[in-house]
Amino acid sequence: MDSSSSKDIKTETLDPPLHAIGFQIEDLSPHKVTGRLHVTEKACQPFKVLHGGVSALISEALASMGAHMASGWKRVAGIQLSINHIKSANLGDLVFAEATPLQTGRTIQVWEVKLWKSDPSNSEKRLLISSSRVTLITNLPVPKDAEDAAQNLKKYFISKL
Amino acid sequence: MDSSSSKDIKTETLDPPLHAIGFQIEDLSPHKVTGRLHVTEKACQPFKVLHGGVSALISEALASMGAHMASGWKRVAGIQLSINHIKSANLGDLVFAEATPLQTGRTIQVWEVKLWKSDPSNSEKRLLISSSRVTLITNLPVPKDAEDAAQNLKKYFISKL
Amino acid sequence: MDSSSSKDIKTETLDPPLHAIGFQIEDLSPHKVTGRLHVTEKACQPFKVLHGGVSALISEALASMGAHMASGWKRVAGIQLSINHIKSANLGDLVFAEATPLQTGRTIQVWEVKLWKSDPSNSEKRLLISSSRVTLITNLPVPKDAEDAAQNLKKYFISKL
Amino acid sequence: MDSSSSKDIKTETLDPPLHAIGFQIEDLSPHKVTGRLHVTEKACQPFKVLHGGVSALISEALASMGAHMASGWKRVAGIQLSINHIKSANLGDLVFAEATPLQTGRTIQVWEVKLWKSDPSNSEKRLLISSSRVTLITNLPVPKDAEDAAQNLKKYFISKL
Repeated sequence: MDSSSSKDIKTETLDPPLHAIGFQIEDLSPHKVTGRLHVTEKACQPFKVLHGGVSALISEALASMGAHMASGWKRVAGIQLSINHIKSANLGDLVFAEATPLQTGRTIQVWEVKLWKSDPSNSEKRLLISSSRVTLITNLPVPKDAEDAAQNLKKYFISKL
Repeated sequence: MDSSSSKDIKTETLDPPLHAIGFQIEDLSPHKVTGRLHVTEKACQPFKVLHGGVSALISEALASMGAHMASGWKRVAGIQLSINHIKSANLGDLVFAEATPLQTGRTIQVWEVKLWKSDPSNSEKRLLISSSRVTLITNLPVPKDAEDAAQNLKKYFISKL
Repeated sequence: MDSSSSKDIKTETLDPPLHAIGFQIEDLSPHKVTGRLHVTEKACQPFKVLHGGVSALISEALASMGAHMASGWKRVAGIQLSINHIKSANLGDLVFAEATPLQTGRTIQVWEVKLWKSDPSNSEKRLLISSSRVTLITNLPVPKDAEDAAQNLKKYFISKL
Repeated sequence: MDSSSSKDIKTETLDPPLHAIGFQIEDLSPHKVTGRLHVTEKACQPFKVLHGGVSALISEALASMGAHMASGWKRVAGIQLSINHIKSANLGDLVFAEATPLQTGRTIQVWEVKLWKSDPSNSEKRLLISSSRVTLITNLPVPKDAEDAAQNLKKYFISKL
């Protein structure tokens, strides 16, 4: 499992709420954003399963970073998120997330985000936990005091090439 | 502003991810669940506005608690969440959330959750930040190791009467 | 029941698919669009209840007309629709629909559309059938061959004043 | 293009509103439901592009037939539909639709429905028009007067084997 301190700094810098629930960002590109979550109590609802709102948070976060890169570093804002929770994940499960673009228009982008867990009966298989669509508007001006956002994302994006 | 330590314990007990981003649960009943969030960096995306995924997390959390109470303390699970982000909230803003039921059927419940912020130009007015619909399934058996969930919610629910 | 031939011409002109399933447009303004449907077989699915896709069609249609008016007659396009089906309506029921704006921004509009039926046990009460959110983009250029669209809507809009 | 009268009877029998807008059902199985639409004025909004509500109607219809088959012929009802409109289709375009299951649980099913059009610049390529998720509840009793619904679907389903 990937839990080096450099990864934690990356997620903490790029998306504090995502870091707060224990998620680790991995791939960062305009074509795909991925990451993983080891499900601990800070990501669970009281029935000790992965909180549906945490799945939604992961979806919105990965889609936003992807759209930001795909827009050529313009400011983006999510305007709609729609998520279906398919299967539960339990305390201790390892969850994988992947965001890919369905549409990268000049004004509107739509990203699909899927979450999976390992199939306990077959470690080579993954089971779909949730599937979501995030709609974003992408031609927004970047406010002065938020120029860091692109700088930070560029740093990690470029360091992968 | 309501930030007594007793409130924090309530939210931390009832919904750890909600507590992690700084939200405070207030009213708890089968007819309405409310709360508030003072927007700090742990609830923001990198452009320093309230993270859309945090709005989704709040919506799913409040709807789930409401549905749990409205179902007569059966186990509930969110199966779909759909949220429209209408306006942004900034670092420092105070956000109010309210969840109310649209449908409380025996198998399916649908809750509407709205988030507002104070209008800076008129403190008596509130501006809609987001509007969501959470669909939940409610006739699930409660697993042995999750009986605490209902106990905790009952404690805070009853203490309000 | 309102079924004058003038009404039919209005709906047929403004929205052919809406007319095909038997819907009648009533109020037309930038603040509210309404109408009604007497549920016949052409609006039903095979279990003889109102087709969920017909509720979605009504929602998208009313929101689009409202957004077109609210945008100052710019071209609009729906980009997302999310609908919860709450109760069924049966063959013979009378269904009321009302669309109102949640957000009328320069680029994005969000409309809420609700459908009700009369409560058979209390004719003064209405029961919610479905609740939807339609997200539209509104700053699109009007193509040459579609200038009629605004003309027709203006005709019926103005005739109400 | 497939427009034999036998096809029309199939669609008219299985889903009258779908037939009213000119759609033709093709494959019918618990694993996939497909069909096509030659876009005529009865499927268009006033700007002469495919009506977004018609895309939603197609999605709900195909998912419902698929879920009905996948449930073992129990009664099903759509409870949520969420659709993203990605690209427009114009008067005269040929549109393809495909519904496949994401989840076929005992109580809840989720189907994904995609619509494409031919790419005018490359006849071997298809462009995504819309992507939707339909959530259905499947353990409903079949009312006496609706037994025909399953009979009709079985007839066309079996005739394909």
